[in-house]
Amino acid sequence: MAEDLAEPDDEVLDQDRIDAVLQAVEAEDSAGLEALLEPLHAADIADLLEQIGGADRRALLALWSHEIDGDILSEISDAIREEVIEGLSPEVLAEAVRDLETDDVVDILEDLDQPQQLLILGALEDADRFAVEQAMAYPEYSAGRLMQREVVVAPEHWTVGEAIDFLRGADHLPDQFYHVILVDPRMQPQAYVTLGRVLSSPRDVALSTIAEDSFRTVEATEPEADVAYLFNHYHLISCPVVDEGGRLVGVITIDDAMNVLDEEHQEDMLRLAGVGDESSISDRVLETTRQRLPWLFVNLLTAILASMVISQFEEAITRLVALAVLMPIVASMGGNAATQSLTVAVRALATRDLTGANVARVIRRETVVGLLNGVFFAVVMGLVSWVWFGDPTLGLVIAAAMVINLVVAGMAGILVPVMMERAGVDPALASGTFVTTVTDVVGFFVFLGLAALVLL
Amino acid sequence: MAEDLAEPDDEVLDQDRIDAVLQAVEAEDSAGLEALLEPLHAADIADLLEQIGGADRRALLALWSHEIDGDILSEISDAIREEVIEGLSPEVLAEAVRDLETDDVVDILEDLDQPQQLLILGALEDADRFAVEQAMAYPEYSAGRLMQREVVVAPEHWTVGEAIDFLRGADHLPDQFYHVILVDPRMQPQAYVTLGRVLSSPRDVALSTIAEDSFRTVEATEPEADVAYLFNHYHLISCPVVDEGGRLVGVITIDDAMNVLDEEHQEDMLRLAGVGDESSISDRVLETTRQRLPWLFVNLLTAILASMVISQFEEAITRLVALAVLMPIVASMGGNAATQSLTVAVRALATRDLTGANVARVIRRETVVGLLNGVFFAVVMGLVSWVWFGDPTLGLVIAAAMVINLVVAGMAGILVPVMMERAGVDPALASGTFVTTVTDVVGFFVFLGLAALVLL
Repeated sequence: MAEDLAEPDDEVLDQDRIDAVLQAVEAEDSAGLEALLEPLHAADIADLLEQIGGADRRALLALWSHEIDGDILSEISDAIREEVIEGLSPEVLAEAVRDLETDDVVDILEDLDQPQQLLILGALEDADRFAVEQAMAYPEYSAGRLMQREVVVAPEHWTVGEAIDFLRGADHLPDQFYHVILVDPRMQPQAYVTLGRVLSSPRDVALSTIAEDSFRTVEATEPEADVAYLFNHYHLISCPVVDEGGRLVGVITIDDAMNVLDEEHQEDMLRLAGVGDESSISDRVLETTRQRLPWLFVNLLTAILASMVISQFEEAITRLVALAVLMPIVASMGGNAATQSLTVAVRALATRDLTGANVARVIRRETVVGLLNGVFFAVVMGLVSWVWFGDPTLGLVIAAAMVINLVVAGMAGILVPVMMERAGVDPALASGTFVTTVTDVVGFFVFLGLAALVLL
Repeated sequence: MAEDLAEPDDEVLDQDRIDAVLQAVEAEDSAGLEALLEPLHAADIADLLEQIGGADRRALLALWSHEIDGDILSEISDAIREEVIEGLSPEVLAEAVRDLETDDVVDILEDLDQPQQLLILGALEDADRFAVEQAMAYPEYSAGRLMQREVVVAPEHWTVGEAIDFLRGADHLPDQFYHVILVDPRMQPQAYVTLGRVLSSPRDVALSTIAEDSFRTVEATEPEADVAYLFNHYHLISCPVVDEGGRLVGVITIDDAMNVLDEEHQEDMLRLAGVGDESSISDRVLETTRQRLPWLFVNLLTAILASMVISQFEEAITRLVALAVLMPIVASMGGNAATQSLTVAVRALATRDLTGANVARVIRRETVVGLLNGVFFAVVMGLVSWVWFGDPTLGLVIAAAMVINLVVAGMAGILVPVMMERAGVDPALASGTFVTTVTDVVGFFVFLGLAALVLL
């Protein structure tokens, strides 16, 4: 029964199995295909569907789609989920979504077009459909969308024995629950008890005496990113969700929070790189091109801006072509130093380590770091330029430009994301382009301007 | 008892409280300080210590250090932990670490220098010290270091009632446990049962009949990053850890895995930006400068390489200065497009969405995306250059260079990280510098080379 995962790559979904699956698909051997897929976890089947090509995927689904269940639908990436759902018969789809907890259905629905949403809602039983529609009434990316509605509660005055008897008699319990939530008569959560404490305590102990010291709730309208932060910061395992009146409406568990945290990280990383919200490498070529183009376009505009700075110094460059050779170095070093500061700042804002309490000190710190590295590279690059072009004054000019640009880089790398955060904009979004525009423009202007003043 | 967290920023550790704390520190009002800090969660006290300046921190600790407990030590970032521990009396330190589970002690020890390690080991009771030393014998960043050694096990043949009676009689149970692990007589885990199932099942039910369908173990020597991936991929809550003989030696819980995942993300993001393994914004200026300098130095070398390409075309630039004005645009667009591909590739490698099964297709995809965006920006930039400098041939030259550089960018952005991964190097590490070197060199060479051929 135990499965040794010392080599997860080899065992879980390896190249051999993928090759065998593709062969079975080509041979239209549906029994063989089933034998290959049956032992796999839903998450691995989803990975397989994502990793094979579109034509293979359609051929596989044609042979095997009646076996698709809700767990697999939950696991596949948004990029191909629509395509997969389109290929399912209404009966298979209905059976698949009926298996799922309502929060998983909501998660699937969110990313679909309306006709597919209606198809899935139509497949649900009335009570589940009502629950899903209620969840969809909460704002996108809110705790209300993330929570599961099935909760395990007990009146505050119950004992361990009463709770156990209630649980044993319960018709339907959530797949996952880690706490018994104690509520008052108005369904307002007051505390919770871990299942471990319930299990290890005698039957006559009052639940309220073994409740956890630390207890938090979130409101259903709260952004899911804030909820994920709370889980990570306070090491929560589950957290009750309440409405404006403080009444219990659901519970969020750590696996959902982990998922959100993962998506937030991905979003930050992709946004910092100017990739927009591209969801995955399984997106189609045209879709990917379309997503990346706007950010490249912004970069083109800022690059043209930097070029306009250069064009102000055409005469200087014509008279001293070494300027054209050296100027990209000043800009490049500034861009790199700025990206360093920026990334640290965006990360610190995301983890809330950068706050009003330390922003002034962090700005000072980044400026000093820029200054120190600026001085170091000024000396190095000054000497290199002197040796290369045999002109000590040129060395001094590039040294001065390097110090100034690296100080500016340190300040811009922190100020731009902090100001974007204050303005309510995600600091990861396009910060990179703004910041390197600053260092390009300043780098070219200071270097060429100083050169024009001093050398010509 | 319930604490409303609708506005966690305002309530948890807000600017007002930090200001009040700093005032109490300045007034040396230790009673006031204690009243302000006592209601805070250990994670928030740690944040406070990180966010205030070094002098304030030392003053605060001088007044309050006897209240520091193990949880706070666990929460503070590595950057200031040594400083905090140095300020503690041996008695306070001993009491603080005795509170902790052994995995938390290991986590603290890992980042300390040897004298401080010995101080902490000396403060532990014999049994705990032995457990910690055993954990430290596993490789760094392995499952063995991450796991807690306290496990809750039951023989395979037990019933629900036997398990409950055992738990009620147990002397010491872990703070957190979510499963009862079923073991055979050689202590090899065979299955596990969620506490929810134990609680909701009648006493005479055999544990083996309510065990989870899906069950995985990890070996103690497995890298923690692989463990975190397993938790995320298979939505695990806890996972038994076994030795080479398959015998149970500990258990890893989801909060530890979430922590590793978070650190892995941070590492990828910082490495992509060339920030090395800088741990936090509370690092000191000199430390930060020292960490960032090597990456800037690598960037300097590559920037000089690109400049050497430019210097081959000094004559062309002297004769047509528009080349100096336009060349940074070609390089910049290539660098940006490459960073986009690279970031998507690094992310996909980290989440294991980019594997042997789809690498050829993804490379093809990135190349086509590069080609399509290349053609688009070739047309735009060709027209802009024509209008700007009144020279249609110059427009054609920059258009051709743009297409070539964006295709190269797409390919380099994916090939470099894939090759680094195959070579066993973290693909996030310095990929950015390699890739943009390629696009700088190719961009300058193709643009200036074509111009020299066609225009002069």
